[in-house]
Amino acid sequence: MQKDSIVARYRVQVDRSDSVALARAMAVELTVEVPDALITRYPGIESDVVADVLDVVEVESGIHQVTLALAADLAGEDLNRLLNLLLGNCSMMPGVRLVDLHLPDQLLSRFKGPRHGIAGVRELTAIADRPLVATVLKPRGAPVQDLVRVCREFATAGGDLIKDDHNLIDDDLESFRDRVVRCAQAIRESQGDRHVIYLVNLIAPSQQLDARLEIALEAGADGALLAPWVIGLDRVRELTGRWPGVYLGHPSMSGVLTGGASSGIDAHIVHGTLARLAGLDGSVFVNSGGRFPVTRTEGRSIAAALRQPLANLKPAWAVPAGGMRPERLPEMIEDFGRDTMMLMGGALLTAKEGIEACTREIVQQLEERFETAREM
Amino acid sequence: MQKDSIVARYRVQVDRSDSVALARAMAVELTVEVPDALITRYPGIESDVVADVLDVVEVESGIHQVTLALAADLAGEDLNRLLNLLLGNCSMMPGVRLVDLHLPDQLLSRFKGPRHGIAGVRELTAIADRPLVATVLKPRGAPVQDLVRVCREFATAGGDLIKDDHNLIDDDLESFRDRVVRCAQAIRESQGDRHVIYLVNLIAPSQQLDARLEIALEAGADGALLAPWVIGLDRVRELTGRWPGVYLGHPSMSGVLTGGASSGIDAHIVHGTLARLAGLDGSVFVNSGGRFPVTRTEGRSIAAALRQPLANLKPAWAVPAGGMRPERLPEMIEDFGRDTMMLMGGALLTAKEGIEACTREIVQQLEERFETAREM
Repeated sequence: MQKDSIVARYRVQVDRSDSVALARAMAVELTVEVPDALITRYPGIESDVVADVLDVVEVESGIHQVTLALAADLAGEDLNRLLNLLLGNCSMMPGVRLVDLHLPDQLLSRFKGPRHGIAGVRELTAIADRPLVATVLKPRGAPVQDLVRVCREFATAGGDLIKDDHNLIDDDLESFRDRVVRCAQAIRESQGDRHVIYLVNLIAPSQQLDARLEIALEAGADGALLAPWVIGLDRVRELTGRWPGVYLGHPSMSGVLTGGASSGIDAHIVHGTLARLAGLDGSVFVNSGGRFPVTRTEGRSIAAALRQPLANLKPAWAVPAGGMRPERLPEMIEDFGRDTMMLMGGALLTAKEGIEACTREIVQQLEERFETAREM
Repeated sequence: MQKDSIVARYRVQVDRSDSVALARAMAVELTVEVPDALITRYPGIESDVVADVLDVVEVESGIHQVTLALAADLAGEDLNRLLNLLLGNCSMMPGVRLVDLHLPDQLLSRFKGPRHGIAGVRELTAIADRPLVATVLKPRGAPVQDLVRVCREFATAGGDLIKDDHNLIDDDLESFRDRVVRCAQAIRESQGDRHVIYLVNLIAPSQQLDARLEIALEAGADGALLAPWVIGLDRVRELTGRWPGVYLGHPSMSGVLTGGASSGIDAHIVHGTLARLAGLDGSVFVNSGGRFPVTRTEGRSIAAALRQPLANLKPAWAVPAGGMRPERLPEMIEDFGRDTMMLMGGALLTAKEGIEACTREIVQQLEERFETAREM
């Protein structure tokens, strides 16, 4: 094993008698994908390129934990190479799931990570000590004036961040510009002496992503919502590295990675580690108690991965979502704590008391809860 | 249901009593993702935006087939919007798998599809009537002179297409240029009066994809190997639309979609329909009888999707791979027929009789087999 290797741990469905052979097959498949006869033809390849099998441990009958050490240089300085190296062709081996990942500082130092992260977004919003309150512009098909009204009411009432829904997609650059200008203007006019963050949705044709982002930033938006598993994880890294702004990850399509226990990649890696490597300042993920059947444990593991030390990469915001309602705030606070964006979409937009009153109530609840905590 | 809708069929794990509600939840989640109260606020949204549930049929106990009609305009003219629309947030609903897809001509006409496809590549190679013989440059870590030697021997012996392995990744643009120039030159010097196709690997930093492709085309390569599920499916469409050349899809990471039966997307859609929409002239997929446990049925379904009529999109090459050996040719011919690239990597590179003799033998076998067929 080389110094400063990537250490990747996989949960593998395999019988004991085949487990060591499968671990070796994974080590070869991820790196050189050739028969042993070709590996031994070049002595440097086995030592420098092929992954080392560090460990094969039986977890339960038919389930093994395989730990590989992968040369960090193979991952280069981008997430295309890293993804290809970590799972690539092994995604087609049934029963292989990446469950834990240690990246050496040497590799991490090649990534910029979040530009703002938790502290930077707090500085932008001047909210130092409580979770942020966020909402969503939707549905697609609503007239722009109604989205503008949501912006006004939410910003007036003290909300902190507004993002386009990932399904709020304008047909072309002109309608995108028109809508974003109007939404941004409404927010700026209503925010008073605060700064309310506005993020546009960038699910759009690949060749328009930069153009849309430029339009949005010029229009007064603060950044964008980026869906790594739709537009490409490394495309997200490219965008966040190139443009100023605040960026949140959206989980569209990510369920093909995180769903199920026997393939793909664990959610804390997908929405935590990889999101930070892609330069996202926060990650939207579906939380328990909403429309999706996920566990509280999974959500907490994502939040931990967003915040844990990761070389020089800033910690990022947990954004639990997917049908959150104001009455779930206590549990969300318990699970995710202070550095959390409390994202309320449909529940806030349809609140009986109106968007403004509902937003005020949420902000007040959080202020009381976290001022109390501060006084203790 | 609007005329010219996308019709998407899902295999869903759900009890009979919940199946209709789940189908409706999917229809809402994929399009507007808001409570009914917001949908009914704007009458046009239910009719124009929210998907229609066409059908919910019990296939077996606990398994239903849900058919949705989705407005084609929501998919725009790109694959970011299409993916987000077809599976997006429903990827996070357990037990939902996209298994069949009908795209209306109105939508298909917005995509260029493969530039060359089956007929175009036949024209480039002047091989009219038999499968093509293809090989792979690998392993990473081998000296360039050895890759050059593979190029020479394979081209001299009558091979038709050489591609970089998806793990053959040069650290930077300079080493990429150096290697590609030398490989392309060796092929051109050895091909005689034929044209042997050379495709470079484009797993690289997102911001370098265009630059690497430009370098490769200038160096005399014919196009590239693109991994849609690493670099982004719509990024592939963008690249194939922007640059001339021949493009093959590589399945790295695609197993998170195709593996398992209860989530993701069926292989014939991933490697067939979506590949053609992305402008790929052919799709590499793991075939039965190699290193990956897939079925012959799956491979044949991919080949069918690559070739079936799809508005004006050209049919594309089936490229069964993943540990194919010369002795498997008869079965591969039986499964995939004439319009197939017979891709032999490790088996050819380590052939006892040498690359040249092995290549000649494969070419001869195919010529005999398909000349015989022609004479019948």
